[in-house]
Amino acid sequence: MTNFQNKKCRIAVDAMGGDFAPANNVVGAIDASAADSNIQLLLVGDKNKIKKVIAEKNLQFPEEQIIHADEVIEMSDSPTAALKTKPNSSIVVGAKLVKDGKADGFISAGNTGAMMAASTILIGRLKGVSRPTIGSSFPTQNGDYCSVYDVGASVDSKPSHLFEYALLGSIYAREMHNIPKPTIGIMSVGEEKSKGNELTFATHELLSNSELNYVGNVEGRDVLKGTVNIIVCDGFVGNIILKLAESTIGLLKSRIKKYAEQGLINKLKALVVKGVFKEALSDMDYQSYGGVPLLGVNGISIIGHGSSSELAIKNMVLKAKEMFDKQLLQKFEEALKDYAKSK
Amino acid sequence: MTNFQNKKCRIAVDAMGGDFAPANNVVGAIDASAADSNIQLLLVGDKNKIKKVIAEKNLQFPEEQIIHADEVIEMSDSPTAALKTKPNSSIVVGAKLVKDGKADGFISAGNTGAMMAASTILIGRLKGVSRPTIGSSFPTQNGDYCSVYDVGASVDSKPSHLFEYALLGSIYAREMHNIPKPTIGIMSVGEEKSKGNELTFATHELLSNSELNYVGNVEGRDVLKGTVNIIVCDGFVGNIILKLAESTIGLLKSRIKKYAEQGLINKLKALVVKGVFKEALSDMDYQSYGGVPLLGVNGISIIGHGSSSELAIKNMVLKAKEMFDKQLLQKFEEALKDYAKSK
Repeated sequence: MTNFQNKKCRIAVDAMGGDFAPANNVVGAIDASAADSNIQLLLVGDKNKIKKVIAEKNLQFPEEQIIHADEVIEMSDSPTAALKTKPNSSIVVGAKLVKDGKADGFISAGNTGAMMAASTILIGRLKGVSRPTIGSSFPTQNGDYCSVYDVGASVDSKPSHLFEYALLGSIYAREMHNIPKPTIGIMSVGEEKSKGNELTFATHELLSNSELNYVGNVEGRDVLKGTVNIIVCDGFVGNIILKLAESTIGLLKSRIKKYAEQGLINKLKALVVKGVFKEALSDMDYQSYGGVPLLGVNGISIIGHGSSSELAIKNMVLKAKEMFDKQLLQKFEEALKDYAKSK
Repeated sequence: MTNFQNKKCRIAVDAMGGDFAPANNVVGAIDASAADSNIQLLLVGDKNKIKKVIAEKNLQFPEEQIIHADEVIEMSDSPTAALKTKPNSSIVVGAKLVKDGKADGFISAGNTGAMMAASTILIGRLKGVSRPTIGSSFPTQNGDYCSVYDVGASVDSKPSHLFEYALLGSIYAREMHNIPKPTIGIMSVGEEKSKGNELTFATHELLSNSELNYVGNVEGRDVLKGTVNIIVCDGFVGNIILKLAESTIGLLKSRIKKYAEQGLINKLKALVVKGVFKEALSDMDYQSYGGVPLLGVNGISIIGHGSSSELAIKNMVLKAKEMFDKQLLQKFEEALKDYAKSK
């Protein structure tokens, strides 16, 4: 077996996508490449703007690793239309680097829909995958993570899609989270087999008859309880779960802030609360996670929050490197081939 | 206009439903009737067991207001089957009291599905309602509430159902939460009109062409942000939202507990956190809400958590009384009639 960990991994980073681009993107990406000498970074975007950030921050970066792209797909652009109307955008140029074998992975904190479309259409799907999926890992009561697929707003998912999410998600959890046989649940409205809708019933049949470690239906509360390692659901449902869970910390912060405004003693108590939160709830700060991979495409593709911090960008690059080292794509391909044979 | 607030309201309470029945149910219900002399309480269930609680707790309650029912629908019973196999159950007997005009409202912390089925089938639907709905009110960042309909696991909701949820929910919010023109959003995966699925697109058409204060799509994060007063969605989605949101406080508590176990200073800090939580997050303790009304049935029907506390039961009875005082049913009927005419 090749020692991939000592192999150079070429990671392209969209320098223009996100609310704090290009500054956060350039600094975070260079930080990551400084942390791992086997990362060969490619910065994709407006060359002058990227060089300006590098100069301002007193960073070192070889000019030949800046890949010029003079258009930007804005957050408000229609994803699929933008792929055609903005062929020189950083997202299209970056995805093409992977397609053409010039990069092993691509990362963007830009327009999520455009990134999904560019990855799916330009990089292409793995054989046996009908719909690539974005998962999100939620911190659980027991200190583990529960990954929900799909959260990418890929609506009207079919049972076969949910099955693919379970298959890809299992391998991802095994390799990236070191869980030998990840448990899988179907998101529903009750634990009993009889509870659910047409999608959950049909998915139950597919998963029951597979080799995956499927345990049955789970409910909304099971995400944070961590009842299972992986939950599959329609992208419509998963996207709502993700955004609701992310907003919890905002509710807490606003309440503590209001509390602190009611006198000096409250202010002091609120300071203690903030300190405890920082230690005890750090994993609820979805910022630091640094993006989620789009699984099922024929290359490493990681999509970040529009508001990605430098740390988030850095973590996205390091995650791409880890996926590369652990040969995720090859393992996906093998599992999909085995499943196709078993049918 | 009749002064309903001075009119006796007959409220039947299922003494047998819930994890802490009959004790919590009997004590909570009698507490409520002691707080409002216009409540005429009927306790439905095993007469001997109810009398035993009354004696043990040194309470006063007229025996003729205990309505004997010698069967109990268990949490594990199949809801619709149980209505037939257990005709003498407290839920069936209680719902029949409303049907027969012997009670104005019925409350249960028992089997939710059975309570929904008994209310819908025995008490019956209001004219113009095709599917009764359970809403849940979530505390928001701005200190208000956002009500989500349906959370009752009434899966595969149709656009017309979501429209009815919006209509009934608007009147409920206007009357019970004093919001003159409640804003309404459709739960989706993006704010843009183009984001969503078939259900959201068709519901958008219905709500756009109505007199309701519809503002457009909302996302998962808008529940706790409080972007709108009312959110409508499929019961499958709403039920997942409810259970996920309810589980947040459990995640917080478990994290603070673990933190407290790491030495004396942590323990002291955790005590401060608990105190602040109690003051600043009290409305996130869904326990105290005391159940949710089933809207659209031809009587007051309130469904509580299986783990309802005495306070929760008390609050459920008081909520039923408030719905009675504010003539919710009559107002629902008028609005449904007006809508039918406008079509």
